[in-house]
Amino acid sequence: MTENTTLKIGIAGLGTVGASVVKIIQEEQEMLAARAGRAIKIAAVSARDKSRDRGIDLSGIAWADNAETMAENPDIDVVVELVGGSEGTAKNLVMQALQNGKDVVTANKALLAHHGAEFFALAKKNGRALAFEAAVAGGIPIIKALREGLAANHISAVYGILNGTCNYILTEMWRNGLDFETALQQAQEEGYAEVDPSFDIDGVDAAHKLTILSALAFTGRPDFAHVETEGLRNVSAVDIDYAAELGYRIKLLGIARLTPDGVVQTVAPCMVPEESNLAAVEGATNAVFIEGDRVGPTLYVGAGAGGNATASAVIADLVDIARGNVPPSGAFVETEKTVPFDSREGRFYLRLTVEDRIGVMADVTAVLRDHKVSMKSILQYGQGGAKSVPLIMITHKAKEAAVRDALAALAALDAVQEKPCVLRVEIPGGTEEI
Amino acid sequence: MTENTTLKIGIAGLGTVGASVVKIIQEEQEMLAARAGRAIKIAAVSARDKSRDRGIDLSGIAWADNAETMAENPDIDVVVELVGGSEGTAKNLVMQALQNGKDVVTANKALLAHHGAEFFALAKKNGRALAFEAAVAGGIPIIKALREGLAANHISAVYGILNGTCNYILTEMWRNGLDFETALQQAQEEGYAEVDPSFDIDGVDAAHKLTILSALAFTGRPDFAHVETEGLRNVSAVDIDYAAELGYRIKLLGIARLTPDGVVQTVAPCMVPEESNLAAVEGATNAVFIEGDRVGPTLYVGAGAGGNATASAVIADLVDIARGNVPPSGAFVETEKTVPFDSREGRFYLRLTVEDRIGVMADVTAVLRDHKVSMKSILQYGQGGAKSVPLIMITHKAKEAAVRDALAALAALDAVQEKPCVLRVEIPGGTEEI
Repeated sequence: MTENTTLKIGIAGLGTVGASVVKIIQEEQEMLAARAGRAIKIAAVSARDKSRDRGIDLSGIAWADNAETMAENPDIDVVVELVGGSEGTAKNLVMQALQNGKDVVTANKALLAHHGAEFFALAKKNGRALAFEAAVAGGIPIIKALREGLAANHISAVYGILNGTCNYILTEMWRNGLDFETALQQAQEEGYAEVDPSFDIDGVDAAHKLTILSALAFTGRPDFAHVETEGLRNVSAVDIDYAAELGYRIKLLGIARLTPDGVVQTVAPCMVPEESNLAAVEGATNAVFIEGDRVGPTLYVGAGAGGNATASAVIADLVDIARGNVPPSGAFVETEKTVPFDSREGRFYLRLTVEDRIGVMADVTAVLRDHKVSMKSILQYGQGGAKSVPLIMITHKAKEAAVRDALAALAALDAVQEKPCVLRVEIPGGTEEI
Repeated sequence: MTENTTLKIGIAGLGTVGASVVKIIQEEQEMLAARAGRAIKIAAVSARDKSRDRGIDLSGIAWADNAETMAENPDIDVVVELVGGSEGTAKNLVMQALQNGKDVVTANKALLAHHGAEFFALAKKNGRALAFEAAVAGGIPIIKALREGLAANHISAVYGILNGTCNYILTEMWRNGLDFETALQQAQEEGYAEVDPSFDIDGVDAAHKLTILSALAFTGRPDFAHVETEGLRNVSAVDIDYAAELGYRIKLLGIARLTPDGVVQTVAPCMVPEESNLAAVEGATNAVFIEGDRVGPTLYVGAGAGGNATASAVIADLVDIARGNVPPSGAFVETEKTVPFDSREGRFYLRLTVEDRIGVMADVTAVLRDHKVSMKSILQYGQGGAKSVPLIMITHKAKEAAVRDALAALAALDAVQEKPCVLRVEIPGGTEEI
């Protein structure tokens, strides 16, 4: 294929992102041709409902009633998969397209999280592009930064705010003192959360994205099964208040970190210092730190979703393919393995609800000492005759497993009256507090 | 040249960055070969002093007594120019190398700011790479983000903290209440500022980098002559205090923004809201916002200098060249022109020192009204019998030229006792306050 050949694409899925891709390609033909070195043309599209008005002009573009037929269509060089879902049409289409020697661009994080290892291998075997800038952190070119921009680095960690819905909810809880349910309802009313929000607020969406980043940084193979995932449902307004009192904000973070045992992957609500760059990231914005051994910590911030921002990433992939810039789908160097989460070591926020009587503090601290968990800060509130009081602690660095065991022992104490709350403390930017 | 051919490079300049490049290429041969698709080998090096111990092993590498001979050396595919300076050896070497059909990687912002237009054209004519990721914001892959990652966007603005020395000084002034001279001295003692610091603190270094970003975003041709440059020397501790009182921090920003008249380029101390991402960037870190029409505002943060971080960017360019990913040096689309700075419109912080008597406020506000400059906030301090008091104002949006004229008229008032201080107010992230 010469530089002057038109790149012909087929777009499967015409939701918000698909419609934006069509619109931008049509409106910016000249600019994109200049950047790509050749014209990019939409040869065919496909969606469930042909009659729906999407505010885009589809005249002169072939309509595929069945998206999967695009994989066979000789008029298509690149299949753009925007159908979504980790099985069914999306999976079949991507597999068939790669097998038939077509390049693929996808925004489908679920698909890659579950089947990425297989697809990366298939793309490699067939010498085709499988590009997915749009699958992580919307329009921020984070895949390109990780795979190309930091090519001189061994990566030690990739982590950040990967889900805009959760960050919106946490921002509203913090800013306006809302409880989780109220903030969620507001997010739904304002279009930041789906009617069924579980995919976002349970951390699954962030875990999909983390799996992809982790594969690029470390393993070459997305390994969703090894992501320890905890969502927002247990984050309460009181913990946001105590965090603020201690100088922290609560953020849902996806974290993939290289430990001596292997790569640990987790999605969980975490406390970050209020002066850190991640604390300053508010609303539906995404923010990702990449730590390289040569470059140090680097941070990337921008819109995590939205039709135009995501389409921007899809089209950047198309321009790359048109220009012949096709790095391997997975990592260039696939050396590391994922390991269970217990290998994490870090600091923790613990909140216990305890009886307000003499000796309780001694019991609690004895349990922690026995599990080799030591304290950095303690907040204790007497409440003037209340039967139970909150006891808030931040630990020094401790092993995940040690803290889990200590919490089980604490929960068994008579004086401890509710299930203890635990949040991880993360210090972004590579500066570890002592 | 096939994929399996070794990429042979010549490195001119073995300062901190050059030595880091040598070291990383030697230590990471296997990783880099995997990422580049072929081996990267150092064929020759050159520096002023052959005998100096740089902590690197140069055995088996040819030594060029005269760096410029590398441009003629048939054993070299890519010349890495780390000599520095906008004239002399650096300029001759880059020009000769491109003319002789070699690719060039450089970290030399001064060279590109002054001669980039000529070199971009030369690289294009000869079909060679001229890569310069290391020239702006150290290890942050900002050139790649701007040119490749956001290829689907028209850029409306590129701006940020481009000089680590200045940001270190401003951070120390703010955090520890130091005056400028003391903070500068501390920066020199700690190695963040040169013995002759003028290049950094007068904003020249930031202006060089801004010129390059502006060329990529808008014009295709670095145009250093049209950067309005103001350094840190006039930033006083009292302005940092008043800024804090009004909810702002002072940062030295480089700003290239598309206006209806063309591209306005400026480097100046600016006030940014304390809750903004740029306010959270402390010490010697760099941070750059790119605003695209589709993706919205995106932010990139990381080390702006240092041997390893800068070497990381140099090597990323080498890997790109090895892989054949060679975008044009300048912008893909060269549509805009730079225009004089007067076209800027924005908000301003004004500090006057005025006589403490009745009628002064009326005189001052009348002058501003006559120049169509309206006030958003005013702070006035009576100082119990002091002859002069500070009068601090933040304007609504106003034209640069109108404010300059108003300031001249204010300075001419009898009651105004010192040269008025003016700082620009910038609201990062595309959210314009009303």
